[in-house]
Amino acid sequence: MTDNKRVVLASRPNPNVSLDNFRLETAALTPLGDGEVRVRNHYLSLDPYMRGRMSDAKNYAAPQALDAVMIGGTVGDVVESRNPAWTVGDKVVGIGGWQEFTTSAGADMRKIQGTAIPLSAYLGSVGMPGVTAWYGLNRICKVTAGETIVVSAASGAVGSVVGQLAKMKGARVVGIAGGPEKCAYVTETLGFDACVDYKAGALDSDLEAATPKGIDAYFENVGGEATKVVIQRINAFGRIAVCGLISIYDNTAPTAIDFRRVLIQRLTIEGFIVSEHMEVWPEALKELGALVATGKLQFRESIADGLASAPEAFLGLLKGKNFGKQLVKLI
Amino acid sequence: MTDNKRVVLASRPNPNVSLDNFRLETAALTPLGDGEVRVRNHYLSLDPYMRGRMSDAKNYAAPQALDAVMIGGTVGDVVESRNPAWTVGDKVVGIGGWQEFTTSAGADMRKIQGTAIPLSAYLGSVGMPGVTAWYGLNRICKVTAGETIVVSAASGAVGSVVGQLAKMKGARVVGIAGGPEKCAYVTETLGFDACVDYKAGALDSDLEAATPKGIDAYFENVGGEATKVVIQRINAFGRIAVCGLISIYDNTAPTAIDFRRVLIQRLTIEGFIVSEHMEVWPEALKELGALVATGKLQFRESIADGLASAPEAFLGLLKGKNFGKQLVKLI
Repeated sequence: MTDNKRVVLASRPNPNVSLDNFRLETAALTPLGDGEVRVRNHYLSLDPYMRGRMSDAKNYAAPQALDAVMIGGTVGDVVESRNPAWTVGDKVVGIGGWQEFTTSAGADMRKIQGTAIPLSAYLGSVGMPGVTAWYGLNRICKVTAGETIVVSAASGAVGSVVGQLAKMKGARVVGIAGGPEKCAYVTETLGFDACVDYKAGALDSDLEAATPKGIDAYFENVGGEATKVVIQRINAFGRIAVCGLISIYDNTAPTAIDFRRVLIQRLTIEGFIVSEHMEVWPEALKELGALVATGKLQFRESIADGLASAPEAFLGLLKGKNFGKQLVKLI
Repeated sequence: MTDNKRVVLASRPNPNVSLDNFRLETAALTPLGDGEVRVRNHYLSLDPYMRGRMSDAKNYAAPQALDAVMIGGTVGDVVESRNPAWTVGDKVVGIGGWQEFTTSAGADMRKIQGTAIPLSAYLGSVGMPGVTAWYGLNRICKVTAGETIVVSAASGAVGSVVGQLAKMKGARVVGIAGGPEKCAYVTETLGFDACVDYKAGALDSDLEAATPKGIDAYFENVGGEATKVVIQRINAFGRIAVCGLISIYDNTAPTAIDFRRVLIQRLTIEGFIVSEHMEVWPEALKELGALVATGKLQFRESIADGLASAPEAFLGLLKGKNFGKQLVKLI
C-alpha cells in the first residue's frame, strides 16, 4: 500500500467529453497527519452530474478544478486511521473521488451499518440516485393512485427507483428507455406498466399508445425530444420534475416546446438538485434501505473493471450504453 | 327599455381573430320570470382570456358556444327584480357578457358596497385582473425585499398591479412594455424601477442593463421572445408565474428556450388560472380594495365607447394597442 492511482481532469469538454479530458496518475501515499483517515475505495459511482462539473460554464456547483481528482461518490473501508471517530475496518460511503485511496479528515463520509444491503447499493438505490428519485417523486411529481407518470431513462439508477416507488403508490407507470433489452427489463423486472423504446423512432405515437389517459407527471432525466412529446400529452395540473437532461448537456441548441401548454394545462415544471435538499435524506434513505433489504426494490448495475476504465465507462454513460447503475470496481 | 344589444360569437378564429368572428344583434327584452333580476351594464371588461374561449381547441375552459353572447365581466346596476335578494339600484359586478342588459337568477354576480372605489375598478385592480396579479405574485413569484422581478405587459391591467404590489414588498421591479409612452407611465406613474421597451428592438441587452443582479422572478403575460430572454438571465431558484401568453395565442410555432436553464438554475415555472383559486379572492380583494380606496394603487383605463366598438377594441387589446385596463362603456 504505497501508491494511489487517481484520475484527474486534464482539460474541459469542447464541446463534447472525450477520453483525453481525463488523465490517470499514480502518486505515492504519504503518512497520515493527525486527525486523518484513509479509505480503500471498492466502488466508484459514475453519474451524469459529473458532466456539468467538467465545464467551467456558470452552473449550480463550482466547476471541477483542472488537474484535481475528479469528484465522485465511493464506498470502501477504513484501512488506516489517526482520527478517533474512525476505526480500521469501518465500511464507509463518501465523496472519495476517482481514486483508489482517499485520505481526508473524514468529513465527507459516513459509516454504513448492518449487512442486509450490498455495499454498492449505497451508491445507487440507497444513495444519491435513490434519494434523487425519492425527492423528485414525492416532492414534485406527487403522483397518486390512478394517475399516470412517465419516467425517462427508466432503466437507470434514478429512473428505476422512481418507477418502482410510483407503482407502490398505485400509479400507472410508463418508462422511456433505449432499446428492446432495456424496455423488457423495465416492464418485466422493474414492473412498470409499459416502456417506450425511444430508439424505435416513434416516440410520439408509442407514448400516446402507452398513456391512454394522458400524463399527470413526468420525471425528466433526458431532455430534448422526450420533453416536447410529453408536454403535448400532459394533463391539467401536470407536474414535471426536471432531474437531468442527459441528451442535451453537450447541445447548445434550444428546445422548441409548445410553451402555451404551461398555461393551458396549468403545469408546474421544477428543476432540482438533491444535494440542496439534505433535510429529506434521512427519511428517504430509511425507506429505500428497508425496501432494498427486503427485496422489494430491484436494481441492476453495470460494473467497469478498474480505475483505468472509468473515463470510457463515463463516456458510455453519457450515451446511454450503461444498463442500470454505472459503477467502477476499484480495489 | 325594450331592446337589448348584444355581441355573439359568429365564427371561430382561423387562426387569427377578426372582426367577422363577432356579430352585433338586437333582441327584445322579455318580462322577467320569477326569481330573475335584470342588470343594466355600464362597463364591459375586455380580457385576453377571451381569446382562448373563442377557439374550440382543448383548453382549460369550455369553448364559447357559437351564436351565444360572448363571455365577459361587467359592472352595472339592477333595474328590475323579481328576486328578493336584489333591489333596484343595487350596484353589481358579474359575468354579464357582451351585452347592455343581463337577465339572470343573480348567481353570477355580487353586490358592490361602499363608494370610495370607482365602479369600473371592479373590473380591473379590484376585480379579476387584480386578483390574478395578487395570486401570481404572492403564491408563485413570492418576491422578497431586494430581489428583482420582471413583469411583462407592465402597463396592463394585471402587470400594473403586480409591479406596484412588488414595490411595496421592497423588490426591484422591472417592466416590459411596448413603446416609450407606456414605459414612461410604468416608471413615472406606477413607480417601477425601470421599464424596457420591447419595440425598441434590443430586449436582450436592455433587459440585461435593467437587471444588473439578474432576475429572481418573472410574471409572464406575453410569451415568445420575452420568455427566452428572461430564462437566460434568471437566477438560481427563480420563479416564473405563467399568467398569459398574449403574443403567441395565435401562433402555433413552438418557443425555443434553453431548457437546460430549468435544471441549472433550479427554476419553478407554473401556469395558473385565477378562477381556480377562489380561496384567495376575499383576502386579495380586501387588500386591493383598500389600496385603491386610499390612492396607493394607481390604474389607468382605455375606454371604448359603445357595445358596437367592442370587437375592434378586443382586437386592439390582443395587439397591445390598449393602454391600461381595456373597458367598453355601455349604457
